[in-house]
Amino acid sequence: MRETIPELVALGAVELRSGLVSGRFGWQDVALQYLQHIDNVNPHLNALVRVERDAWEQSLNRFEQPLGGVPVSVKDNIWVGGRRTSNGSRLFSDFIAPEDALCVARLRGNGAVLIGSSNCSEFACKGNTTNILYGATRHPLDAQRTPGGSSGGAAAAVAAGLCAVAIATDAGGSVRRPAAHTGVVGFKPTAGVIAHGPGFAEPVYGNNTIGILARSVGDVRLVFEQLHGHQPRDPASVSSAMLGRDGTGQRLKIAFSPRLGLGFAVDPGIAQAVEHAVRLLADAGHAVEYRDPPWFENVQEADLMPLQLAGLATIYADAFRNNRESFDPDIAAQIDAGLSLPAVAVTRALELRKRLFAAMCSLFDRVDCLLTPTAPCVAWRIENNAPQRIEGKPVGPRDHAVFTPLFNHTYVPACSVPCGLAEHGLPAGLQIVGPMYSDRMVLGLSAEVERLLGHRWQRPTVKLGRGGGIH
Amino acid sequence: MRETIPELVALGAVELRSGLVSGRFGWQDVALQYLQHIDNVNPHLNALVRVERDAWEQSLNRFEQPLGGVPVSVKDNIWVGGRRTSNGSRLFSDFIAPEDALCVARLRGNGAVLIGSSNCSEFACKGNTTNILYGATRHPLDAQRTPGGSSGGAAAAVAAGLCAVAIATDAGGSVRRPAAHTGVVGFKPTAGVIAHGPGFAEPVYGNNTIGILARSVGDVRLVFEQLHGHQPRDPASVSSAMLGRDGTGQRLKIAFSPRLGLGFAVDPGIAQAVEHAVRLLADAGHAVEYRDPPWFENVQEADLMPLQLAGLATIYADAFRNNRESFDPDIAAQIDAGLSLPAVAVTRALELRKRLFAAMCSLFDRVDCLLTPTAPCVAWRIENNAPQRIEGKPVGPRDHAVFTPLFNHTYVPACSVPCGLAEHGLPAGLQIVGPMYSDRMVLGLSAEVERLLGHRWQRPTVKLGRGGGIH
Repeated sequence: MRETIPELVALGAVELRSGLVSGRFGWQDVALQYLQHIDNVNPHLNALVRVERDAWEQSLNRFEQPLGGVPVSVKDNIWVGGRRTSNGSRLFSDFIAPEDALCVARLRGNGAVLIGSSNCSEFACKGNTTNILYGATRHPLDAQRTPGGSSGGAAAAVAAGLCAVAIATDAGGSVRRPAAHTGVVGFKPTAGVIAHGPGFAEPVYGNNTIGILARSVGDVRLVFEQLHGHQPRDPASVSSAMLGRDGTGQRLKIAFSPRLGLGFAVDPGIAQAVEHAVRLLADAGHAVEYRDPPWFENVQEADLMPLQLAGLATIYADAFRNNRESFDPDIAAQIDAGLSLPAVAVTRALELRKRLFAAMCSLFDRVDCLLTPTAPCVAWRIENNAPQRIEGKPVGPRDHAVFTPLFNHTYVPACSVPCGLAEHGLPAGLQIVGPMYSDRMVLGLSAEVERLLGHRWQRPTVKLGRGGGIH
Repeated sequence: MRETIPELVALGAVELRSGLVSGRFGWQDVALQYLQHIDNVNPHLNALVRVERDAWEQSLNRFEQPLGGVPVSVKDNIWVGGRRTSNGSRLFSDFIAPEDALCVARLRGNGAVLIGSSNCSEFACKGNTTNILYGATRHPLDAQRTPGGSSGGAAAAVAAGLCAVAIATDAGGSVRRPAAHTGVVGFKPTAGVIAHGPGFAEPVYGNNTIGILARSVGDVRLVFEQLHGHQPRDPASVSSAMLGRDGTGQRLKIAFSPRLGLGFAVDPGIAQAVEHAVRLLADAGHAVEYRDPPWFENVQEADLMPLQLAGLATIYADAFRNNRESFDPDIAAQIDAGLSLPAVAVTRALELRKRLFAAMCSLFDRVDCLLTPTAPCVAWRIENNAPQRIEGKPVGPRDHAVFTPLFNHTYVPACSVPCGLAEHGLPAGLQIVGPMYSDRMVLGLSAEVERLLGHRWQRPTVKLGRGGGIH
């Protein structure tokens, strides 16, 4: 059964801003409709694990700012100063973040309304969204399914209209895949473009990036343009001067790699939706060709996993030894694996990362951007950590996630933009990847895909069927 | 016995350029004097392992460029396209670099005369300069001593006037320590400021930086200003827009940390020379205070070593298995150690690196720059891998190298500037460190130290005593 979406909740961030600025409605109307909608829907989805009912009042004096009045959720692994922030883990069930992450401070300063925290998997280290502290987040279009993860709470909240924009982390596709599964836009900028930390320790060195989810590319862009740039508190962040132009109106040279050159299984409905979007770009005048990244032999994403496994083992070694039952059993298994690996498994992964980076550079010497599916399948049933079959074949637990992590390991910007419906009438995502610092071009092309497809995924949608309550 | 230095060889790069531009002398005079001096001195030092006798002729049509006519040596681990480049290793004894490293291409394009390759330790992974392919490099001021390493060839060549400037790599102090030991300036820029690669695989992910050695800060600056900036071939390189101003004339807030807050042993002559330079800066009006970086408990550089040990083991695993006798026994021991470590030793080092970075940021929130000794001792006897005593106490093999690597692991710019003579009348270096992208401020302060001390180390010097030949 499709839920009715309140009028102001149906607006995107850009429209919301323009209505507030023109005085067509007031922030009280926005707050009222959002809080009612959240009360109505969130108990069924468990997308937000904390809601700040006075969020609008808290940012009253900043409504003149570029994001003034726009409700933004923050993933539960990003610090919001003075608020409980739990990293999806029992270890942090009572942890109050001592200060804002830099991106959160920027949001605040720009008037964003920090409406609440979105659910994620433990330490954001699983490809779905469930944990032993808060339970599972449900898919807004089918409560029997997961929105994927680790930012499933963020994606479900945006898709269902519990917020206009979500801020989350993407260390291996955690923003892009849930965005694809729920039919929203999910953008991972170039590493360093949005200043990082302070926050929780992270298992994979250098891979984690603040990402943005919204129901349109325009909304993502609105927020992105407020967040990029060097900040002294993160000396690894880079100047906005590094960012190129958006390239709108240019004829781009585009590589389309339907299986990423690595033979990944893809469900036929996904493949069709992706190909349709690619064809529209070719028809619009871009030079599209089938081309895979120039990988060397035996590239396997699995060879990069030791970074996460040993990384988790390092960060949580003491807690794990003393308090194993506080860990999600899936994460405990990862830590066990990390503890038994040799050092060269990690340095081999670091070496592999350098070679992947070189392959990426070589690709972007030849083309302006790369298109792939974001995920090879639609959202799967909530009781499973991963889909069990893709393209009719039995698959392993990481096969649904293979299209995204290589672009974290190579630091480049990547955006998932909805490209239609696939199996079971559920959303598919097209992944658009560019060279480092081409973030605006990636967003520009994402907006073009949106226009060519006719803006069909802009409105929040919630269907609450059988079994849609919290379990 | 002090060697006579030919008139034009005695000039620094800036003076050489001005003489060439004004027509006071011609490139043929420069070439002749340099080649004679090299023929005379290099056989005793073994600083250059290859000399290009027609280097000036090769760059004839680029003498109008900013570095036109300036002889620059390139460390044997940096690719010079079409030339033998051996990484100090028998594995690469016949390797011809397929293309220029980006910094080499920039030097070439700017008219630099690529005079030859400087000796280094195997894979640049030892703190002195000897290898089983080319043998040991000797110290220009005392042939019974090593210039340190791994860029000992580069430092000895600059100090002895075999080139005006040297380009080398610094992954843990390999530019700064030999510079300190030989009385020249050695600068390691912020990571990413000089574009990196293409070249040999490197064991420590992200630590390696192209550095510059010369006999004055002005000469280092001349070359640095030609090399920085984003290059598409290295997407990890950053825009020159990231670099701050040089700060000349400003009253800086300076932290002086004589033992880096970690209780490192320092020989008294070194400590005195360093303190003298620091006092001159205070007298010149800077706000100097004793202050250590705010380390957390139990910081030990040794905990970072697994990155190098397992990194070497990863890169050279196959060659090592099949051909162990092609390795320097010291490097073989490092590889053996790397093979026996667990994965968490590496991820713990990566985690430590993040915490060190945070400590560095926190220091640079409070001060503009940090001063330390570059090395805690003067150059030691050539038959030893490391000095055996510092400050009267027996020390381990890495204790001479402890002041430099933390600034690689934290990516910040650091310059060693000569600060007088210490034990045995041999040079001491002051290390000046700044926050990321403050490269020009670090060089500006280095130049001020030079001025305050009266430019005493600008002329090349060579003393050939007993046993100064090649052995």
